Order: sequence, then structure tokens, then C-alpha cells
Amino acid sequence: MTDALREFDRMWAELEPIGRDARTGGYHRFAWTREDHTLREWFAGECARLGLDLTQDRMGNQWAWWGDPDAAPGIVTGSHLDSVPDGGAYDGPLGVVSALAAVDALQQKGFQSTRPIGVVNFGDEEGARFGVACAGSRVITGALSAERALGLSDADGVTMAEALSAAGRSTSIGPDPQTLARIDAFVELHVEQGRAMADPQQYDQSTSAVAVATDIWPHGRWRAELPGVANHAGTTRLEDRDDALLKATEVITAARLRAAQYGCVATVGRMSLQPNGINAVPAHVTAYLDARGPDADAVQRTIADLAALVRDLGGEWHEDSWTPSTPFDDELSARVRRTLGESTPALGTGAGHDAGILANAGVRTAMLFVRNPTGVSHAPSEFAEPVDCHAGVEALITVLEDLAS
Amino acid sequence: MTDALREFDRMWAELEPIGRDARTGGYHRFAWTREDHTLREWFAGECARLGLDLTQDRMGNQWAWWGDPDAAPGIVTGSHLDSVPDGGAYDGPLGVVSALAAVDALQQKGFQSTRPIGVVNFGDEEGARFGVACAGSRVITGALSAERALGLSDADGVTMAEALSAAGRSTSIGPDPQTLARIDAFVELHVEQGRAMADPQQYDQSTSAVAVATDIWPHGRWRAELPGVANHAGTTRLEDRDDALLKATEVITAARLRAAQYGCVATVGRMSLQPNGINAVPAHVTAYLDARGPDADAVQRTIADLAALVRDLGGEWHEDSWTPSTPFDDELSARVRRTLGESTPALGTGAGHDAGILANAGVRTAMLFVRNPTGVSHAPSEFAEPVDCHAGVEALITVLEDLAS
Repeated sequence: MTDALREFDRMWAELEPIGRDARTGGYHRFAWTREDHTLREWFAGECARLGLDLTQDRMGNQWAWWGDPDAAPGIVTGSHLDSVPDGGAYDGPLGVVSALAAVDALQQKGFQSTRPIGVVNFGDEEGARFGVACAGSRVITGALSAERALGLSDADGVTMAEALSAAGRSTSIGPDPQTLARIDAFVELHVEQGRAMADPQQYDQSTSAVAVATDIWPHGRWRAELPGVANHAGTTRLEDRDDALLKATEVITAARLRAAQYGCVATVGRMSLQPNGINAVPAHVTAYLDARGPDADAVQRTIADLAALVRDLGGEWHEDSWTPSTPFDDELSARVRRTLGESTPALGTGAGHDAGILANAGVRTAMLFVRNPTGVSHAPSEFAEPVDCHAGVEALITVLEDLAS
Repeated sequence: MTDALREFDRMWAELEPIGRDARTGGYHRFAWTREDHTLREWFAGECARLGLDLTQDRMGNQWAWWGDPDAAPGIVTGSHLDSVPDGGAYDGPLGVVSALAAVDALQQKGFQSTRPIGVVNFGDEEGARFGVACAGSRVITGALSAERALGLSDADGVTMAEALSAAGRSTSIGPDPQTLARIDAFVELHVEQGRAMADPQQYDQSTSAVAVATDIWPHGRWRAELPGVANHAGTTRLEDRDDALLKATEVITAARLRAAQYGCVATVGRMSLQPNGINAVPAHVTAYLDARGPDADAVQRTIADLAALVRDLGGEWHEDSWTPSTPFDDELSARVRRTLGESTPALGTGAGHDAGILANAGVRTAMLFVRNPTGVSHAPSEFAEPVDCHAGVEALITVLEDLAS
């Protein structure tokens, strides 16, 4: 095993306990919490070890540079360290740890770069706390306004503005063109979130440990606010009730049916009930919907039907985010694939990424996927074989070496 | 206005801010929390002011005696001070405050009692925190075992044993026959939780401010544990999913349909989702069901159908509590009604009460209801007219005077 892979294994082991639920084995690493702070400190320490210059942009995303990106824009790699609730170990951290290991390897071999190389740790990618995914990259690219971001609130009613202040951070967030101008190209490595690469009928398993992404499906998040009338569950006749949860069941069921009908995926994964008392008729339900698919029209038809249903039920329908189909940079992706070998699989994905936000903002962007044998993602059992993770690091070394030469 | 009614108004105003949500106006007063502690301290202070001897039973319910109940069993009145989540001001506190005001009035007028008079503040009546209603009275009567009670856990996973310890209380809880032996008769005053008394077609509104209860409907609480498989909501095909929330919608819908079909009420008012992430397929849902009705068979038929459905869905079905129909003491209720006047309405109720738990344990028990103009209950807008509340206090004075003479 090379030094770089040993370093990868060491870093991976160090991250393992941070924010892990001892009961489920899943991770709870949410933006601007204690766990997040620990991860950011860890990242800063690793960058210091490699002699990188660490800076933060206006949203607190961490950028570590080998070379001066203000002299000439550089090649950036990295991902995020936060997680969904009870998430897996790989989604995000695999890209950050691989990036650090790759830079380590290039330094060890005395690689003479013609331009700076950067490693980024994006904050709040999953949107687990405030409901908007990729908040870190959205804010610095202007895709999410500072006003709207600061007003987002978590399940306890804490706004992002309050969370930033509590973490001792400035609330003067916003677009950061200076940071974006330092990026010549961005390559994000990520664990695959389906099991296409592991399907022997689709790909030769001897050459499908690493793939190149073609595009990110159009995807978005919506929210149904469904009203009812609070009342005692024992003494209020069925015909006198206005039960918000019964309305929510219609929306949940319709989301599945319409998605199947139009050809996309739609999921209600999060709900909150008011007052959420065993003997109280639900007075209000908030249902959060995630929908995406290869075809934007199919998603929009699904959403239109659900919006109409929610309004028929007397509720309100809000779009919390919408990201159109995001093709990655054709030329850059073709070059990456050529570098790795033409047998490297190329595939699209239903998952959103900071790479997609940057691509939409005009940054030259590509992605690498590492094979996921079960396809499980956003769950404690999310997994990639160590040998495939190592193949990802080796691929990233090769790509950086090519792009920065 | 008499001194007793002025005292009622003073006490009512003192309780008003405790545990009230400034936004909704609803109350959050849960067992063994800071708010609960404040209410218990307040109760102790009022009892001291009246010169009552305050004791606690093995479950921490507070009993305040005027006279020595170990010399001869006494007449007890009172209710509870805890609330459902975002509950109203009246459910519980009206009975406690009326009891204190009535004892005050009897003392002021120099009433010569032939037996002790007691005021009780039962703990954890709503079961809002640990899921089992009337936990205070159930434990001391043996209807809820200490082992089961101590193992109940709240939404944060805190067990009742842990909550008791955190509140500095003993976990040596259990049946308390000595306390029960001190009760000759128990009369609980409570705000009505429907609007029968306010219906001019049913009752002469000039004489229906106060009613006598006939019985409590059979009622219970159940829990469906519905499994799914955690996965990414963007990358997992619809046909590959095992979504626990879709199963829950079937249970919620069936509960309403079956209750309507068989003639009872059934409500899913509380749910929890795991992991409850916007972009995660629900891996587990717990749905809590409350069901009751005048006919126990109708409730049990509803429950049997739902249990079968949950098992078909691969889930588990648990009975958390079941209380059969509870008639109050015929002789005692008839005497109360005679004392108040034969035009006093007599009606049953779908709500459970500590009075019902005591009646099931063989204690002579009656209840008084105070008119509720809207029928709203377990919600911030729960209300009774001040003049009707005062009529309740006067009625309670009359009843205590009769029973303790």
C-alpha cells in the first residue's frame, strides 16, 4: 500500500466516531453544531499538516490551497463533511478524505504543479438542519439569497442567522465572486448513490470501481402546509373534525402515484405534526417533498398536480428549491475520462451536489463516483469497499496530475 | 362577588403564564419538567395558605388535607395541572383551582365538617410526555405497573425512571393502598370537552352551566411500529423502495374509515418518522392511535382490523392502555345531582380522567362538568365563561358541604 492510501485509512478511522449514533451506527453531523465544529477543526488540522493555506469564504466554506490561487486560478477537489440525519459515513467525507490523500501523494512524489491545487470542505451540503441542500455553495454563487438563507429555521425554530451567531460567526453572508474566480476547474469525488456501477450487466466489474458523471437530474424540494383544527380526539365527533393528518395522507399517496405515472421519483421523507399529541386531533401538518428525475417535465407535472391537491385541501404549497438539469462540463469530463481510460463508466445521478451548484454558476466542473455495492445511501449501512475507495484516491491523483500539469 | 370567587380569579390569573407558548397561547406543562415543578410548588403554596396538610403518595401525586384522613376517610376533590402539547388553560387546572376556592369558602364560612376534606393534584394525567394517560392515578391503583411506568420513554428517549431521578424523586413507585383508603368519596370537577351542555336543543341554557357525569366511555391507546428501509430519496427507484410512511398512511386512513363504520372515534394524533430527513426514504414510522366510543365492542372491532392491517404491512401493533367503560358511583352521582337540583344535566364523556381510574379501583367517585361554549378541548382556544366557572365553584361548595356534613 502506498503512503497516500495509508494516510487515507488513517484519516478515515479518525472521522469514524465523530457524530455517530452508538445505537444505529448512523451519523448526525448538522451545520453549525458541535459535531460540525469538530469536523471543521479536523479539516483545518489536516490542511495544516500538508502545509496548505486555509481560508474561508463568506459562507464559511473551507478552502485549503497548495500554491497561490490569486496568482492563477487552480484545480480544486473536495466535497462536504456534514450528513443527513442518521446518514452514512461515505456521502461527503469520501470526497474530502480522498482529496487530502491525493494532495499528500502529489506532494510526496514531488509533483511540480503548473497551477495551484485546492481542497474544499463545503458546509451544510445536505440541508439536514435548515431544509435547503447545498446551502454553502448556493450562497456563495448567489443561487440562495443571504436574506432567505438567514431566515431558514431548524426543527427547534432556530434560524440560520441565530445558528451562525451562536457559532460565533458573522451573519454577513452572500455571493463570493472572489472565491469562485480562484477555481479553474472543480472535480468532486463522491460515493455512488445507486447501484448502477455494481451491476455486472451494465458494466465490466473489473473496470467499474470509478466512474465519471455526465449530469445531475433536475431536482427540488417543496413543502405542503396543511391546516386543521385542534381538538380533543376523544370527544370530537368524526364529522365535526378538520384533521390535518388525513389531508397529509392524501398528499403522500398522491406524490407516489404521480411520480410513478410521470416517470420520476417523489418522496415525503420529513413531516411535522402540531400539536403531535396522542389525544389531540392534528391541527397542522407540514410535509416536505423531494422530487427529481431525468426529465424536468415529469417532475414539474408531478409538482403541479400536488400543488393543486394541496390547494384543494385548503393548504399552502411552497417551493423551497429547484435546480434544473445540470450537465457537467463536456470537455472537462471527456478529458477526465480519457485520463482514466475510455472503459470508465459515465453515468447521470439523481442526487444533488455542490459540484452541480458550481456548474450552474459557470464553473468548469466534473465528478467522479466510487462504486457502491448495495446502492444504499443516506443510511447507516451506506458502504464502499476499501479497495474501491483506494481506487478512487488513485483516480483522483491521476486526474489532478493531468489537470494541474 | 364572594371572597371565594375572588380567590378563584386570583389563582386563575397566577396560573395563566406558566408553561404558555407566547406564539400560540397554548400550554406545555409536561410531567416532571420545570413547568410541572413550578405548578407543584404553586399548589403547595396555596395549600399552605389554607393551612392544609400536604402529603405525596408513592407516585408523587399531591394530597392536601383539612382534617386527619387517617382518623376517618374524607371527601376529596381536585384534578390535575399538566397539559397536552399546546393545550388549553382549563383541562385540569379548572378542577384544582375550583377545589382550592371551595375549601377556602368552607373555611371562611366556618363550615363544621364531620370528616376530612382533601384536595388532590394528580401528576401526569395527560400522558403527554410518556404516552400513558392518568399515569399518576394508574400507578397508585396498580392499573399501571411500576416496571412498565418506569420504562416508558419520552420523545427524546428519556425514560420515566430517568425523568424521576432527574427531578430528584425516588423511583420506588407503585400501588399505594394507604392513600386510597383515606378517600371516602372523590368528586372531580372538569371543563366539558364537547359542546352538549351548550346545545339549547338538549338543555335549558339557564340551568346547564354545571352537569353531573354518568360514565366515561371505554377508551385506549395503541401504537403501530411500521418498518421500512432507509435509502436516498433521489437515487432509489420507486420499485426498489420500502417506505414506512406509505404504510403509515394506510393505517391512518383505515383508522378513520373503521371508526366511522363501527361507531366510535379513532385518531392518529402523534407520529414519529426515522430518520425524518427531506431526502431520505422513511425507514421507520411510529403511529400512535387513540380510540374510544360509547360501545366497547365497536372500539375493539376497529382495533382488531387495524392490528391485522399493521401485521399485514410487516409491522408490530402494541396496546399501550385500555380502560373499559367506567360508570361512576350511581348512589353518589344521584346524591350530587339531588343536591344541585334535578334539572342538572347528566351526561357521559369520551375523555378519560383520574376519576375514572379511581372508580375502576373501587373508590366512590363522581364528576362535575362545567359548560364549554365551543366544545374545543386540548387546544389553545379551549374556554369556559367566567360566570360558568364561578357556577362550578359554587356547585362544588354545595356538594362538599353536603357530603362532608
